Amino acid sequence: MKYPLGKKPNNKKEKIVNYSNRGMDLESDINITNEYYRSIEKAFIYKKPTPIQVVKVDYSKSKKITEAYFKESSTTDYNGIYKGKYIDFEAKVTNTLSFPLKNIKNHQITHLIKIKENGGISFIIVRFEKKQENYLLETEKLEQILNDDIKTIKLDFFKNNGYLIPIKYKERIDYLEIIDKLYGDIL
Amino acid sequence: MKYPLGKKPNNKKEKIVNYSNRGMDLESDINITNEYYRSIEKAFIYKKPTPIQVVKVDYSKSKKITEAYFKESSTTDYNGIYKGKYIDFEAKVTNTLSFPLKNIKNHQITHLIKIKENGGISFIIVRFEKKQENYLLETEKLEQILNDDIKTIKLDFFKNNGYLIPIKYKERIDYLEIIDKLYGDIL
Repeated sequence: MKYPLGKKPNNKKEKIVNYSNRGMDLESDINITNEYYRSIEKAFIYKKPTPIQVVKVDYSKSKKITEAYFKESSTTDYNGIYKGKYIDFEAKVTNTLSFPLKNIKNHQITHLIKIKENGGISFIIVRFEKKQENYLLETEKLEQILNDDIKTIKLDFFKNNGYLIPIKYKERIDYLEIIDKLYGDIL
Repeated sequence: MKYPLGKKPNNKKEKIVNYSNRGMDLESDINITNEYYRSIEKAFIYKKPTPIQVVKVDYSKSKKITEAYFKESSTTDYNGIYKGKYIDFEAKVTNTLSFPLKNIKNHQITHLIKIKENGGISFIIVRFEKKQENYLLETEKLEQILNDDIKTIKLDFFKNNGYLIPIKYKERIDYLEIIDKLYGDIL
């Protein structure tokens, strides 16, 4: 059997990171949306890089990192500015008709609350993969349901308390349309 | 000769990343300052993680990254929220009495200008190592001097157009004191 690189894949479970099919995922859709917002100078919102703890670097090979580990993010994944306001959110995918709260870290929820309390606009975006629907839920509503001491948030709660984000061509997931509706008077 | 780990250091230029003495550097001082601001709920400003392109991951060893490369940041290093306003800045050190403009990337300057134009507060912090002085320079002033087609910005320009940041005990580099002076009326 011939292998593309002329050698058999090793069995050490060392995997090449696969970036194909990324157009399908939520992160990619949000990145494309944010790129479009920036291109028309509507908003400047970016995904923060994944935090990585670098342990060893080989300087003989164009600064190749040879040992590093993923770290837990201390904040949320996305932040930036829209019409002068600070925007901050976390985006998650669920494969069921319910959103398990273990998918979002406690310190991330705390962060979203702090941002809200300090005059920023903070929320979560949840994709229900089965339904191909994305909902925006404000931190205030998230806080309310967390008081109920539950483990998952049902899709119905998002339908009744959140906002279905319109799917568009250029701004793939146009979450700022929801922000305009919610905060239009202060923006 | 005895080596601490019982073996001779290899000659492959593979270096262990040294985190000692970090208390001395500008990044560390700003991180400590931001931690203090967060602890008293004054501002929520974070350093973005360094962007790293992950190529290979060994899943047999607690997700050890075995090949990765540093990427260029698409934005600035620090952003967050203060009194409801979006804050964005880049921090640099110079060892001479002049700040070489090659130390800051063009797209980072463009980013700072976009943020300013969209109602955010953006600036650079430059440490003059020899003087042990840190200056805050607003993006507006940076734009002015860039029109002069120069390669370095002299310390005198920072003295006349920027603001010396006070050194304190808890808020090590209290740059928000300068922000209060400059934007107090809108904050």
